This record gives sequence, C-alpha cells and structure tokens, in this order.
Amino acid sequence: MGIHHFFTSLNDLERIIRCPGRFKFEEHNVAAHSWKVSQYAMFFATLEEMNGATVDWKSLYEKTINHDFAEVFIGDIKTPVKHASPELKQMLAHVEEKMMEKFIIDEIPEQFQDIFFARMKEGKDGSLEGLLLEFADKLDQFYESFAELKRGNSDKEFVVIYRNALSKILQLPLPNSIAYFREIILQDAINEETHIDLQTLTHEILNENR
Amino acid sequence: MGIHHFFTSLNDLERIIRCPGRFKFEEHNVAAHSWKVSQYAMFFATLEEMNGATVDWKSLYEKTINHDFAEVFIGDIKTPVKHASPELKQMLAHVEEKMMEKFIIDEIPEQFQDIFFARMKEGKDGSLEGLLLEFADKLDQFYESFAELKRGNSDKEFVVIYRNALSKILQLPLPNSIAYFREIILQDAINEETHIDLQTLTHEILNENR
Amino acid sequence: MGIHHFFTSLNDLERIIRCPGRFKFEEHNVAAHSWKVSQYAMFFATLEEMNGATVDWKSLYEKTINHDFAEVFIGDIKTPVKHASPELKQMLAHVEEKMMEKFIIDEIPEQFQDIFFARMKEGKDGSLEGLLLEFADKLDQFYESFAELKRGNSDKEFVVIYRNALSKILQLPLPNSIAYFREIILQDAINEETHIDLQTLTHEILNENR
Amino acid sequence: MGIHHFFTSLNDLERIIRCPGRFKFEEHNVAAHSWKVSQYAMFFATLEEMNGATVDWKSLYEKTINHDFAEVFIGDIKTPVKHASPELKQMLAHVEEKMMEKFIIDEIPEQFQDIFFARMKEGKDGSLEGLLLEFADKLDQFYESFAELKRGNSDKEFVVIYRNALSKILQLPLPNSIAYFREIILQDAINEETHIDLQTLTHEILNENR
Amino acid sequence: MGIHHFFTSLNDLERIIRCPGRFKFEEHNVAAHSWKVSQYAMFFATLEEMNGATVDWKSLYEKTINHDFAEVFIGDIKTPVKHASPELKQMLAHVEEKMMEKFIIDEIPEQFQDIFFARMKEGKDGSLEGLLLEFADKLDQFYESFAELKRGNSDKEFVVIYRNALSKILQLPLPNSIAYFREIILQDAINEETHIDLQTLTHEILNENR
Amino acid sequence: MGIHHFFTSLNDLERIIRCPGRFKFEEHNVAAHSWKVSQYAMFFATLEEMNGATVDWKSLYEKTINHDFAEVFIGDIKTPVKHASPELKQMLAHVEEKMMEKFIIDEIPEQFQDIFFARMKEGKDGSLEGLLLEFADKLDQFYESFAELKRGNSDKEFVVIYRNALSKILQLPLPNSIAYFREIILQDAINEETHIDLQTLTHEILNENR
Repeated sequence: MGIHHFFTSLNDLERIIRCPGRFKFEEHNVAAHSWKVSQYAMFFATLEEMNGATVDWKSLYEKTINHDFAEVFIGDIKTPVKHASPELKQMLAHVEEKMMEKFIIDEIPEQFQDIFFARMKEGKDGSLEGLLLEFADKLDQFYESFAELKRGNSDKEFVVIYRNALSKILQLPLPNSIAYFREIILQDAINEETHIDLQTLTHEILNENR
Repeated sequence: MGIHHFFTSLNDLERIIRCPGRFKFEEHNVAAHSWKVSQYAMFFATLEEMNGATVDWKSLYEKTINHDFAEVFIGDIKTPVKHASPELKQMLAHVEEKMMEKFIIDEIPEQFQDIFFARMKEGKDGSLEGLLLEFADKLDQFYESFAELKRGNSDKEFVVIYRNALSKILQLPLPNSIAYFREIILQDAINEETHIDLQTLTHEILNENR
Repeated sequence: MGIHHFFTSLNDLERIIRCPGRFKFEEHNVAAHSWKVSQYAMFFATLEEMNGATVDWKSLYEKTINHDFAEVFIGDIKTPVKHASPELKQMLAHVEEKMMEKFIIDEIPEQFQDIFFARMKEGKDGSLEGLLLEFADKLDQFYESFAELKRGNSDKEFVVIYRNALSKILQLPLPNSIAYFREIILQDAINEETHIDLQTLTHEILNENR
Repeated sequence: MGIHHFFTSLNDLERIIRCPGRFKFEEHNVAAHSWKVSQYAMFFATLEEMNGATVDWKSLYEKTINHDFAEVFIGDIKTPVKHASPELKQMLAHVEEKMMEKFIIDEIPEQFQDIFFARMKEGKDGSLEGLLLEFADKLDQFYESFAELKRGNSDKEFVVIYRNALSKILQLPLPNSIAYFREIILQDAINEETHIDLQTLTHEILNENR
Repeated sequence: MGIHHFFTSLNDLERIIRCPGRFKFEEHNVAAHSWKVSQYAMFFATLEEMNGATVDWKSLYEKTINHDFAEVFIGDIKTPVKHASPELKQMLAHVEEKMMEKFIIDEIPEQFQDIFFARMKEGKDGSLEGLLLEFADKLDQFYESFAELKRGNSDKEFVVIYRNALSKILQLPLPNSIAYFREIILQDAINEETHIDLQTLTHEILNENR
Repeated sequence: MGIHHFFTSLNDLERIIRCPGRFKFEEHNVAAHSWKVSQYAMFFATLEEMNGATVDWKSLYEKTINHDFAEVFIGDIKTPVKHASPELKQMLAHVEEKMMEKFIIDEIPEQFQDIFFARMKEGKDGSLEGLLLEFADKLDQFYESFAELKRGNSDKEFVVIYRNALSKILQLPLPNSIAYFREIILQDAINEETHIDLQTLTHEILNENR
C-alpha cells in the first residue's frame, strides 16, 4: 500500500514497549525513545562540532530517527535473548535485515527504494555519526534505568542495565562528549536524591572503567 | 535463588502482552492466556473421555499450564518473525531450549531438575494431550481475534489471525472435539452480532477446510 | 448459549481486579491469579509426592484452575466485607452457589452438567488436594503483598494481608510443604532488599506461629 | 485516625470501578460518578423549583455527594448479585449499614458522629430530594450505557442496563423533570449518530413505559 | 444541543488529568477532584456552623461542584504558566470567562441561562463559602502531593506543591477550620510513615507561617 | 542543573497527552508525535529534493525534533483555547517564548545558550523547511483523527480535526509534496475500510479546497 502503509506503521512503534516483562514505574515506547535519542545526539554532535569535528548532520539525524524502525517487525526482544549466543544474535540481525528488505520491496514505491535501503541499514558503524548514535542509544538506557532506581524500583535488572549502559558509554571513542558526560552530566545525576544509592554504584562503575 | 526466584518469575508473565505492537481494544497477558488454555483443554479432554478416549490428565494440565513459560525469557516475539524462515524458527526454538536449560540448572534445586526438564519441554507432541494443547492454544487465538473483530477492530491482521487459527483448528486430528467445536460452538459464535461480518468470513474458511 | 458462552465468560475474569480499591503499584487479575495458583500447587504437590503422598493430580488441577470461577458472578468482594459477619459470609457463599447452579443449568448442555457441578463446587475441602489449593491461594496473597511492600507501598493494609496470609500458611497441616516453604523459600524472600522491613515483620509472624 | 483517615478514604473511591468485569471502552470511578450525579441533581432540582417545588438544597447535595460512600467498604458489587435474592439484598444492605456504623464510631470524633450518621444513611427515601437522587443516579447509568452503545460496544449487558435505567427513570413520580428529560434531553440523545441503533431501542422502551 | 450536550460534557472532565506532565504514582481527574473538594467543604462548613457561623449551603455546594467546570474548555494548564505573568493570568481568566459565556449562550436554553451564569462564575470570592472553596481546593492539592511524597515520589515539584498548598491554607481567614486542620488533621498526617520526611518539611512550613 | 536537567525534561513530554479531554481509542504523547513528524518530514523533503529543491537538512530536523519542546512548560492546551481570540493566541505565544527564554538562561550553560535560542524558536517560518514542518505537523493530526474515525470514534470533534488538518495541508505552497499526498497517499487512505464514511467526507473537503 505504499507510503501510506509506511506512515501508518510508524504508529505501531508507539505500542512496542521497551524492556518488556519487567516491572517498571513508568513505561516507554520505541517512538518516544527514538525522539529522545535524536535529542541527545543533537546535543553531543553540537559539542563535537564546537570541539572541531565535522558532523554530517543529515546522516546523524537519519541514523537516530530510523535506528529502531526494524522493531516494527520483531518487537523489542528481551535483551538476554539477543545475547544468548553469537549465532542467535547474528541470525536475528539477518532476519531483521531480510524483513526490512521484504518490507521495502513490497511497500515502498520503486523510486524511493534505494533511499530507504540506505537509511534503514544498521546505523552503528564506526563513523562519528554512528558513534553518536551508539552513545545516545545507551544514554537513553542510562536514563530509563536511572529513573527507575531513583524512584525505588528494587528489581536488580535495572542495576544491571544501569551498569552496562554506563560502562559502554565510558568506553566509547568520543573523548570530548564522554568527558562532558562524565564530568558534568553524570555528577548532576548522582547528586539527585535517589531511593537506591546511585552514588556508590556509579563510583564503582567509574572505577571499573578507568 | 531457587524456587522463590521461580515463583516470582511467574509474575513476569503477567507483563508479557500477547500480539505486541498491534492496536487492540483489549490486551491479554501470557499468564491469563495460559489459564484460559487450561480451561479449554479441560472441556475438550472431558469430551474426548466421554467419547471413549483415555486422557492422561496430569500430563494434559502440565502441558497447558507450562506451555508458554519460556516467554519469560524471550517475550512474545511477533508472529511474522517466528515464521520468517524455517532456520530462524529452529534457531529461536533452540535458544529458548538453551535458556530454559540454563534457568533450570541455575535456579532449580537439583532434586527437582529432572521434573522441571520434563515439564518445560515442548508440549505439542503428537499425543492426545499434545493435540489438545495445540487445539486449546489456537482456540485462544480464535477467541482473541473474534473479540477484536466483533468490537470493530479494522486492523486486517486480526482477520489473518482469525483465519489462521480457525484453519489450523479445523485440520487437527481430534474428530470428536473438532466436530463439537464446528457444529455447536462456532455456530453460536457467528450468530452473535458483530461489527465485522464474521459469518461470511467463517463460511469461507469452513469451505476452504472441508 | 452453551459452551461458547462459558468460554467467553472466562475473558471476564481478566477484568476482575484483585484487592479492588487499594492503591497498588501493580494490579493482578483473577485469571492470571488462577494460573499462578496452579503453578504453586504443581510444585508443592510434587514435593508431597516425593515425600510419599499420593496426589490425585486430576482433582488438584481442577480445583486450582476453577477455584475462583465464581467471581465471574460476584466480582472480588472486598475482604473485610466477607468477614464482616459469619451470617454474611454464609449468605454470600450461598448466593455464589445459587448463581453457579443457575449458570450451569441455563448455560451448560445437559450432558456436561454433572461434571460442571462437581468441578465448580468449593475446592477447599480437607483432602490433600484441597489443602494444597488453600496453600497455593494464600501463597499468591503472600507474593502479591510481598511485592507491594518490597516496592515501598506504605498502605498498612498490605502488612495485614502479608501477616494473615503467612499465618494461615504456617498453620496448614501440610508438614513437608510448609517446612520447605518456611526454611527455603521464605528465607530467600526475606533476604531480598525491600523498602519496608520485611525481615523483622516476618520473624515476628514466625514467632507468633510456632 | 479521625478526619484525616476519613479524608484519605475518599481517595479509595477513585479506584472503585463501576460495572466491574465487563468490557468497556471507557471506565468510570465512583468518585467521578458521585460528582456527575450531583450535577444532574442540581439541574433537575432547579427545574422543579422553577415549577413551584420547594427544594431542601442542603439535603439534596448531602444525599448526592454521599450516596455511594459505603462502596469504600464493599466495592461495587456486580449488580446481578445484589438482585440475586431479596434476602441477599437485605443482608448486604444490613452489612453495609453495620460497616458504616463501625467506621463512624471508630474513626469519626464524637462531636461529629450524629452528623455523619444522618448524612451517610440511605438517601433514596420518598422525599423530593430522595427522588431526585434516584433520578440522577439512574441517569448516570443511562449515560454510561449510552456512551458504550454509541461507540459500538456489542456486549448485550449494556442494552440491559440502558433499558433498566431508562424504564426506572420513566416511572419516577417527578412529572416535571421526567417530562423535560423525555421530551428534550432524550430526543437530543437519540438523534446522535450511534453504532448500535438506539432510536429503535429507545422507542420500544418508551412504548413499554407509557 | 442543550442540556444533553451539557450533561455529556461532564464526562470530558473525567479525562482531564490534574498536574499533567509530571510523573505520578497515581493520577487524578478533575471530576473526582471536584467531588473530594465538595466532601472537604462539607466537613469544614459543618465545623464553622458548630462554631456559630451561618453557612449558605446551597451556595457552598454550587461553588464546590462547579468550580472547575471551565477546565472543559481549557484543560488543566500547567500551574507555572498560569503564574508566568499577571497579564497572562488575567488574559487566561478572561478567555475562560468568554468561553463559558459562549457555551452558556450557545448550549443552555434561555430559561436556564441566568442560573448558569450565576453558578459558573468564579466562586473564590471573599464570602465564607468562597473561603471554604479556596480551603477545600488547596486541601486537595495538599492531599495529592502528600500521597505522592508518602509513596516516595522524588520529583521536587511535589515538595513545591505541598509547601505552597499548606502555606496558603495556613494563611486563610478561617480561624476555626484552620485551627482544626493544623492541630488535628495535619498532626495525624505527619504521624504516618512516609518515604520522604514530611515531618521536618511540615514543621518548617508551619514555622514560616506563624 | 544544566544539561542533565534538560535531558530529564524530555521525559516529561512522554506524559503530555495530545488532544486532552476527548475520548480516544488510542492516546498519543508529544514525544512520539515529534518523532512521527520527523519521519514524515524526512520523506517529503526527500521528495522535494528529487524534484530539484535544495533542502537544509540540519535545519529541517532541528525544526521537527524541537517544534513542540515548549509544551514542557504549558502542556497541550486545548485547541479551541488557542484560537479563542487573536490576543490570547499572541499572549500564549509570548508567554511560551518567555518561559523558554527563562529556561535557557537558567538551565543551559552559557556556551550553549545561543544554539538553544536558535533551535527552540518557532520553526514554522516561510522557508522550505518551515513549510515541511507545518505539513508534517498537520499530517500527524490527519493521521491521528483518521485512526479514530476508522475505528468508529463517533465524537464529532475528530471530524472537525480531520477537516481542518486536511484543508490546511491542501493549501500549503509545496506543490510537489501536496500533489503526491493528494494523489497517492490520500487515495490509499480513503480506500481503507473505515467505520465512519471517510470517502465522502474527504471528497467534500477536496472539493472545498480546489
């Protein structure tokens, strides 16, 4: 049904809930997540540019806005499944790619197919824009788990998500952005009053990632 | 953490929503679904017994109560993904099995492990009890899509689910149960006032499955 | 309308919320509750069998799966009402029975009526299976209140429910099951980090029920 | 705990859902219902006054604002239960009264007890204000079922509620109010576009109640 | 569409959520809020009467029941906006008045227009009834923020709301009511176990308002 | 609190519901809306570029991603209010601007303030990117009302929103995009099966906007 079908499928992502199956005080959908990721990326790309980097803004926003579109086909598979085995991860990535391919060929008019193929492919490549997407995506996991722990969610899974997201952020090769995050933003975060002691946990993770 | 952890994980299935990402007037969780499947199976096993079959009741209920426990690990993956390729379906089944295995070995005390392995394995084998599970599971898909279509949900996906569930039911080698379903229950269902014309659709499916 | 009507009425129990009117971080419906009760009973019946008891598995599962079906007619009446007076409790039980009787006679085809009468009658008799139902039903109250208190629900009602459920469990004449619960499961539970101090409360209740 | 406890118990009525267990497109709580009943009563008492009646406004508003407070104790018991037997209805009314009595004696400071006893007693007496409460309470049932049927809810129960509420309204000895309702308000209502044909149904009910 | 339209518009207030955009453990709608305000006002007007005041009960209830009806037109604008500038506050009040005027002229039959104009005008005048409305309205803000802070909501906004509501209450020229609130009700409130330390905060506010 | 505070405020937009106070089968939040608007704009900017236009992509995405950020301060004011008077509309715009200004000065570190001022200003200027934002924003209103009407929402307000959004789209000076929308997308939309007759309504609006 063409672009009309593509547009209505965007609505489906408002019903895909992140981190399905865990108790959360507040739920988030993939559409809203994609918007927050675009906002974070906008800020850090600005910071990188102020530090002399050249940002391909068109590429950056296409990556952040489209990075989870494929969840329309598979939903938000529980994270442990994705990491259960390297073969499975690869197989799932392959299926996702095939379903995206099928969707583009079936639904997108021919004159737009090349553009859709380019935009919908995995965005987390090694480019500056790919790294900023990776950072922004993990930053939203950081903020989602931060909010649950701050409000007193005692599910240990959110400590695991917080730890993993923060560790991966700290190891990204984006020195200016990561420094600003670690020295300014993270300090403001852990100075908030929280139900779970996030100061100690955060310092522990910072020490592990030196 | 042993049986306590197993018991609390049951609660997770109350948060796994069936048919994620589609618009529905009413949502269903996997825990409630498992209960309805047990109820349907109870009725049809009774019918089979009245017609001379020997039912292994212990096996039947263990199958229906446990049949979706593995969704604790992977969530309710969107159906089209499962059927995207035979290799993927097999790979997902394999991962599910491995995660269940890991769960049982890590969480279940040794004296109960054999029993858990036996109970948590795929229940849809060719036995009478396996067929009744298959029937009851599809019957809940039938009823879930029936309710959406009756209330006027215009998402074509529910027509697809209704058609597939009904077709699979009609082909099951359970002559007494299927006859009772087709001649009594299905007639009552399609005599209800519904927003979407289910009479015509149902007769079409019945004709295809003669 | 026969069995079709019975099957669609199962869906109603997904909308009957347990413990209505109290603030809860997470709500539970009667259908999902019935499934969890069946799971708990499955485990403890296994334990009893391993300790030499003879379990009537067909009876056990019929009891757990059907034990709250009557809430289709009356909803989940607030507990204090049920216990307001012995006459009321008796009167409510009587009405429930009459409504169930009426439902079976009106809706269930004659050939199945005897079976439905047998299955839908009060399951908490003095048999092993009746005691396991009683245990499993109280265990779900234990877990529901445990989860609220763990997450920091400051409504005193959940302390009352926790106390009552735990006390009743500890007094049940199921020595093997209760010992396993008290010594293994309960210890794991109170070793969790919880917002409300459940260790002290639990030890107090254990001391009262020696 | 005195008046503070009374005030916090008002919040409980925001969690008591009307018509529990049925599928509804929109749910209503008892607190919001009590406000709408007060609004309807305000209008019709004005109309009665314009037609020469003497309205005891203080009594009218006390009746409408307090008329469902007792649901704090028992919840919204499913209607068929209330009408299952005259003895049960009486017994439930008796228990409600006893629980209200206990609440007032336990929670309300002595200097306010007489006032609370007077205000919390059954308001649907034969006075003008009692009749206006009866009318306004049924009118909210009329509007709740009207909205479900208008939006296409195919649950026959809402046809029953619509029919019963409308019939009882038409028989109330409040000639001026009922005439205005029947000739003006009801005509506007059935002139709306609705999914279920409410014109025919309404004319049928009007004919039955001539 | 006349009174029928007015009656159906009441339902809209069940969908206007108070304090939109903040994270809350429990949400409240404007219809239920209006009912709670009527209940609080009923109590304190009784207290004032017991202390010798003359209460115009008709006026009191009309004020409390109608005081937020205008939110049907504008929604619950975020508080900081209302107070952003005196001109804006005035302009919003003016628009609200104009929209109410337009609604009454367009929708309310002529014979009722004067009565609606009188009832729907701003109720917080300097009369005893106006002061009781002001008190009851602030008291619901007090209770809404109290419940969030008690349950552990760490959003500082609720501390601000609690502080502002309590300060305004303490300054109202209703000596008997305020004394009863400060000496009895507030003491009971801060003696509850709460996640956020409300005793210290409350004493601080009490000291500021001596 | 700087950028941390800005980042956490993004979460607030997940709780601002669009079109507050109306009955809807499905609700949408401002964060998800902003993402969908970015997707629509991405497509039509691509189309414009294919037709020879020069798109400033950085500006386009900044406009779409940020266009509703100011709702953090004021919420989603009901549309009729915004259009109640030109003075009010201007005053609200002015307040919004002032609050944004205050937020940037208070919260955003000095080195980023100029960039935030530029990005957060009203994006619907006469530039190609501003027109594409206007189009995409109205297109989401079109799709939101389309979905409600398709599912059978009988609230006339959604006919009004559908009509207004479609009319404004058809009048935008973006000949290539509007032609593609009118000839391809809109035809696919009105060929869907819908509960409300959208074909007739749409043709009527098309005729009015020739």
